[in-house]
Amino acid sequence: MTDGRLLLSGSGRLCVAQAAVADGPGVLSPWAVLVDAGHIKWVGSPDDAPAADTGIDLGSALVTPGLVDAHTHPVYAGDRSDEAAARLSVVPYDGGGILRTVRATRAASDEELTDMLAMRLRAAVAGGTTTIEAKSGYGLSLTDEVRALGLLAAADVPIRLVRTFLGAHAVPEGMGADEFVQQVVDEMLPAAAPLADFCDVFCDAGFFSVAQAETVLTAGAERGLGLRLHAEQLARTGAAELGVRLGAASVDHLEQLDAAGVAAVSASSTVATLLPGPAVVVGAGLPPARALLDAGATVAIATDANAGTFGSFSMPLVIGLAATLLGMSVDEALVAATAGGAASLGLSGVCGAIRAGLAADLVAWDAEHEGAFALRLGDVQPHRIWIGGNEMPVVPD
Amino acid sequence: MTDGRLLLSGSGRLCVAQAAVADGPGVLSPWAVLVDAGHIKWVGSPDDAPAADTGIDLGSALVTPGLVDAHTHPVYAGDRSDEAAARLSVVPYDGGGILRTVRATRAASDEELTDMLAMRLRAAVAGGTTTIEAKSGYGLSLTDEVRALGLLAAADVPIRLVRTFLGAHAVPEGMGADEFVQQVVDEMLPAAAPLADFCDVFCDAGFFSVAQAETVLTAGAERGLGLRLHAEQLARTGAAELGVRLGAASVDHLEQLDAAGVAAVSASSTVATLLPGPAVVVGAGLPPARALLDAGATVAIATDANAGTFGSFSMPLVIGLAATLLGMSVDEALVAATAGGAASLGLSGVCGAIRAGLAADLVAWDAEHEGAFALRLGDVQPHRIWIGGNEMPVVPD
Repeated sequence: MTDGRLLLSGSGRLCVAQAAVADGPGVLSPWAVLVDAGHIKWVGSPDDAPAADTGIDLGSALVTPGLVDAHTHPVYAGDRSDEAAARLSVVPYDGGGILRTVRATRAASDEELTDMLAMRLRAAVAGGTTTIEAKSGYGLSLTDEVRALGLLAAADVPIRLVRTFLGAHAVPEGMGADEFVQQVVDEMLPAAAPLADFCDVFCDAGFFSVAQAETVLTAGAERGLGLRLHAEQLARTGAAELGVRLGAASVDHLEQLDAAGVAAVSASSTVATLLPGPAVVVGAGLPPARALLDAGATVAIATDANAGTFGSFSMPLVIGLAATLLGMSVDEALVAATAGGAASLGLSGVCGAIRAGLAADLVAWDAEHEGAFALRLGDVQPHRIWIGGNEMPVVPD
Repeated sequence: MTDGRLLLSGSGRLCVAQAAVADGPGVLSPWAVLVDAGHIKWVGSPDDAPAADTGIDLGSALVTPGLVDAHTHPVYAGDRSDEAAARLSVVPYDGGGILRTVRATRAASDEELTDMLAMRLRAAVAGGTTTIEAKSGYGLSLTDEVRALGLLAAADVPIRLVRTFLGAHAVPEGMGADEFVQQVVDEMLPAAAPLADFCDVFCDAGFFSVAQAETVLTAGAERGLGLRLHAEQLARTGAAELGVRLGAASVDHLEQLDAAGVAAVSASSTVATLLPGPAVVVGAGLPPARALLDAGATVAIATDANAGTFGSFSMPLVIGLAATLLGMSVDEALVAATAGGAASLGLSGVCGAIRAGLAADLVAWDAEHEGAFALRLGDVQPHRIWIGGNEMPVVPD
């Protein structure tokens, strides 16, 4: 960590993403931010800046909070690009490919998985992500799920990492769903809970029912885990209402959410975490972002980087897709990718905005206006990155 | 250039993009390609490979023809990211912002424009583009249009570059459209034609009428230029039929093309060059790619990288967008990005496929299957690149 008080400043646009998440990012220009002991101590005009030990002038660069990617599956081996090509030709998506990734992941060594995980986390940081949620779920056995969470805990990449136990990601071969749910609750959860922050379930047609999801999530909550769930991606199941009823931090996907579901989520404190990447690649509809925002929901956007339906960790691309395809403004997309993601992870008091008291997670971009995230879809890159006040090397991924 | 005969080979997938453009790319695996004097001499199985002086084993990497970006506007200064953000909030797109870029471009020095152009061309190569079409059109005066074409001719970046005179890109301030068209024909064309391969017009509502476009294009053809035009992006004007009637190499955009227009283009040898990037960013509809392909049209896809509606030179992203949003299969998108682009530029006998007699423009990707262009939307990157048999350094853009 940089010793002493660091004053960052610039003549360009600082998008702070503070205040209510549904509001615009709020822009200061010119701007100054005082960083001390890894935290933001003060934000304001350069003319009013307090004294500091060192200063860095970021010129006209656009500066935002570090991006928060609130939904990823980075622990896997194998390549399913062929399935993506086949699906876009003729074959409808049924998610069956998860078990193929499970086989490849179980067969990979710890070292192989560690290397691939580190490569993916470094790619995330290189795209401006400073906080990432990472799930297990390609293990589907006690040993393999615990291994995935352990590898996440041991990952030696400087990024704020939130771990989620997703034992109920798919039903493993040779087992019934109810039988597997019992195994998740009785055998996996006791071992996984100490290694995880959240419990998640793939609650959808062909995966786990609302009742099965409730069994797993209730058991997860009893073991002290926060709750989130894959909801309403492939079919309208009522998973969103289950999340609301259980007080889940987030319901994710929501491509098939209808007006009643929008109303239920918007009336709750559960965040709607939308995933435009897989929505585009799977092609089964886009989530009702505009309706959720208009109804007052807290919206996050995330990559869903995974083995089978979206393989990129680029949050700049996700911001661009949200602003162009989901009917969100660039401001709304940027807030959803920062403060919204932090809210989805229960970290609103920790990161995701630029205000006094939060961690000094900041990115200076090779752009001068946040509209570049739309205009240069996926092609906006960090110039400089700070996580908890530490400057990261900016490396190509 | 590498001396002697070079044998490239691999155990992975070689997508050759040969035969009729509307067909699939054709995949060889395992494969070998003999390169001599900058050209492909032979393609086949490694077991049958002729003798060579040197060999390079590309292992399991996916290998494709170098990508062909058949529509770009890389000579400009200034930043219009703010317009993109405004447009996605409330303001409908009327393209008026072109004149803002014209002012910034005229004010920039030759050196500044040269540097920005080189940066953009290097970014294109870094994304696997080995042939690029580049337009003038941010000058709108004799001096400034000729300057743009001259800077393109002098660009010191190793890429196959096709130059297009787009004097009729917008009507400059203080002048009527007819008056300006006369100036384009009488003053600009004589000076621009020796510096250009093609003549182009922005034929659309609010820009140039079909009659005005015909005047410019007919004069361009008389001076020996190939023809292409911006058609049917903002309104259905009949520009596509004009292109067909004049024997244009390509009609570009086509977001508003109807069934009659699809039939007209498909019955001709004019290529339909589709631009999914700006279609997504502008949000005024997607081009009828599926209908064009089903009707037998030759389809190309390109970035349209420009100052105001799409700022990325990433052809991998464009392939991904075409495969996910335009209803094309990944195979069709890859052919459109290679053989289709070459056809659009009149270069089908020069590049855009992997077959004996064509230039040795090849890319080995950090992927094993072409489905990665969809699965890892915008995130597939070249490992190694050859243009005319010369290996390019792979650098971050």
